[in-house]
Amino acid sequence: MAGIRKANRRDLSVWLLEPGCSVAGVFTQNRFCAAPVQVCREHLAAGAGIRALLINTGNANAGTGADGLARARQSCHSLAQRLGVAATQVLPFSTGVIMETMPVERIEAGLDAAVAAARPDAWFEAAQAIMTTDTLPKAASRQVQVGGKTVTLTGIAKGAGMIRPNMATMLGYVATDACIDAALLPALAKEAADASFNRITVDGDTSTNDSFVLVASHRAGHAPITSLDSPEAAVLREALNSLAVELAQAIVRDGEGATKFITVQVDGGRNAQECRLVAYAVAHSPLVKTAFFASDPNLGRILAAVGYAGIADLDPACIDMDLGDVAVVRAGGRLASYVEADAARVMAASDILVRLHLHRGSASETVWTCDLSEDYVRINADYRS
Amino acid sequence: MAGIRKANRRDLSVWLLEPGCSVAGVFTQNRFCAAPVQVCREHLAAGAGIRALLINTGNANAGTGADGLARARQSCHSLAQRLGVAATQVLPFSTGVIMETMPVERIEAGLDAAVAAARPDAWFEAAQAIMTTDTLPKAASRQVQVGGKTVTLTGIAKGAGMIRPNMATMLGYVATDACIDAALLPALAKEAADASFNRITVDGDTSTNDSFVLVASHRAGHAPITSLDSPEAAVLREALNSLAVELAQAIVRDGEGATKFITVQVDGGRNAQECRLVAYAVAHSPLVKTAFFASDPNLGRILAAVGYAGIADLDPACIDMDLGDVAVVRAGGRLASYVEADAARVMAASDILVRLHLHRGSASETVWTCDLSEDYVRINADYRS
Repeated sequence: MAGIRKANRRDLSVWLLEPGCSVAGVFTQNRFCAAPVQVCREHLAAGAGIRALLINTGNANAGTGADGLARARQSCHSLAQRLGVAATQVLPFSTGVIMETMPVERIEAGLDAAVAAARPDAWFEAAQAIMTTDTLPKAASRQVQVGGKTVTLTGIAKGAGMIRPNMATMLGYVATDACIDAALLPALAKEAADASFNRITVDGDTSTNDSFVLVASHRAGHAPITSLDSPEAAVLREALNSLAVELAQAIVRDGEGATKFITVQVDGGRNAQECRLVAYAVAHSPLVKTAFFASDPNLGRILAAVGYAGIADLDPACIDMDLGDVAVVRAGGRLASYVEADAARVMAASDILVRLHLHRGSASETVWTCDLSEDYVRINADYRS
Repeated sequence: MAGIRKANRRDLSVWLLEPGCSVAGVFTQNRFCAAPVQVCREHLAAGAGIRALLINTGNANAGTGADGLARARQSCHSLAQRLGVAATQVLPFSTGVIMETMPVERIEAGLDAAVAAARPDAWFEAAQAIMTTDTLPKAASRQVQVGGKTVTLTGIAKGAGMIRPNMATMLGYVATDACIDAALLPALAKEAADASFNRITVDGDTSTNDSFVLVASHRAGHAPITSLDSPEAAVLREALNSLAVELAQAIVRDGEGATKFITVQVDGGRNAQECRLVAYAVAHSPLVKTAFFASDPNLGRILAAVGYAGIADLDPACIDMDLGDVAVVRAGGRLASYVEADAARVMAASDILVRLHLHRGSASETVWTCDLSEDYVRINADYRS
């Protein structure tokens, strides 16, 4: 059966995919993208069919120049040799410190053990098994009915968003047994990433290694989905997107030093882009984030962030703001009815909703973030020591 | 003689300008600009000649809507009445908490005492006196020869950048006795602000109240400067710009929780804008700032920030990076000769220079910032308590 075989050897994981699986990936927009990201893009473009994922922690292999690229290729080549496949059938993923030389010889020394330890479990069962380990605790699953068959989608997120959200990497993987035209997978992966991993921020630092991978084994037995507009595709897309959102939110909830989960919803923009500008300005503001950490309803900081978000013709006199169920600002000014104690009650919770209305149009966007605590600084100042 | 009379009454300052002074201002780009900023713009545009500056702390009068605007106007009106001038001849400045109702009646109650306490000192002497106080410690001065006369420029910076750089306000004032066509002042003020206050960042939060004001008394006695291109203007501009840079850097050095002063210099850009994109991405990155706080040469974080700065066609393989006198990265990769101990030596200092070369053109830009410490979080989480 189609399977991912998984083996963990300290800082090294190998997952095996049986022939016939389709794979699509979405990768970081960082121009300083890591060597493994570059190799992933090449290998997916080569179209030889992906047979293995090779994941290492501790070293991001980013900012390593041509040497890093050669080392990423070498690690793929070494694993491919052991599996009897082509190097282009291996996708490499790395997470860890940037700008340190990749110890490819140590990875090679671990490959035999990693492959030998791979169990012949179905890839989906393996993904479920991963959910229970300490190093891969972020997992979610969905089952939906497609063409009279049960289709399962299971995802995990690891690395940046899980253990150390800012050490340099967010890695996400979702696998499904849905029968779907492989050519549709990239669009599905991009849609899911845009709805989830591209809507979260811990500190605004876009990683060099971010990768989101979607694997389809085509084993569910229903009639293949050949159009994204079919009712069956709609069911699958909804399940995939909500699964990705659950994983992405789990990353934020586990953000470095995070004590609060904050949803920033911006309505009434002229377009999605300006809604995102405002939402990210609020979500990235250290002053807003420290106020949430302190449960201090110093909400003027949110207005200030709206004001510098970059909408040149924004009219502050049109802005409304609500915090949870509390109306705070109407027409750009503090409501006479607003009492800080109400906002303080909302901020005391661990989940907080900030709603802003721009009254310029009908677009809406939502971004998820966390607060900024002293622990964030402590964790990142001590990261390598 | 031309004079600013200054009186401090706890949270209220009134400065008096004698007739004939010219005033120009540069204000925040934040769309949620404070009521006093809006009133300043109006009153400068009215052209009646500014006779007084009214500065309060503790309340920013921002995010206060139409009511805030009315209260700012009322405070100008009340002071103008006492001085026998028009309300449009008063410039109001506020600094403090955003989105709280301006206690204009308390300001009015303090005005008589503030005006009565105003001493008939020359404005320049008054500015020097301010330099020695605890609440206005950031001051700088220059004397240059213009047309055979000594011209003095003295500046102070207060509020946001001084006491609590992120409480919501940066206020800067420079006064000179230079004889200069009043029509040239706005361009001079903008050039000085662009070279200084617009090149610093503590946390990327653009205030609702930022104001920089340039006052000229025209009393130095030299032949009036009527063109920005004259040799005399060049001397004055150089003195003004370097004075503003000194004040701006003083704000960063005193940034909340700051332990390091960091200069980010970006060379080799196609234009100034892309150099600034890169410099600000580095200067705003919480990961870069925490690494500097820890004196940890985790310099890959800088490369990551360069990569997400927003230059779509940036080639990472062209990037060079130096830390102080240490060559770290060439052609996008870590130099074989680079030893972390060298970078650690540079980072242990309180002044650190990061140089990035993009090798795309000949533009250069420099931004100044500080590190991010646990104290930043502590100060801002506790700000209002």
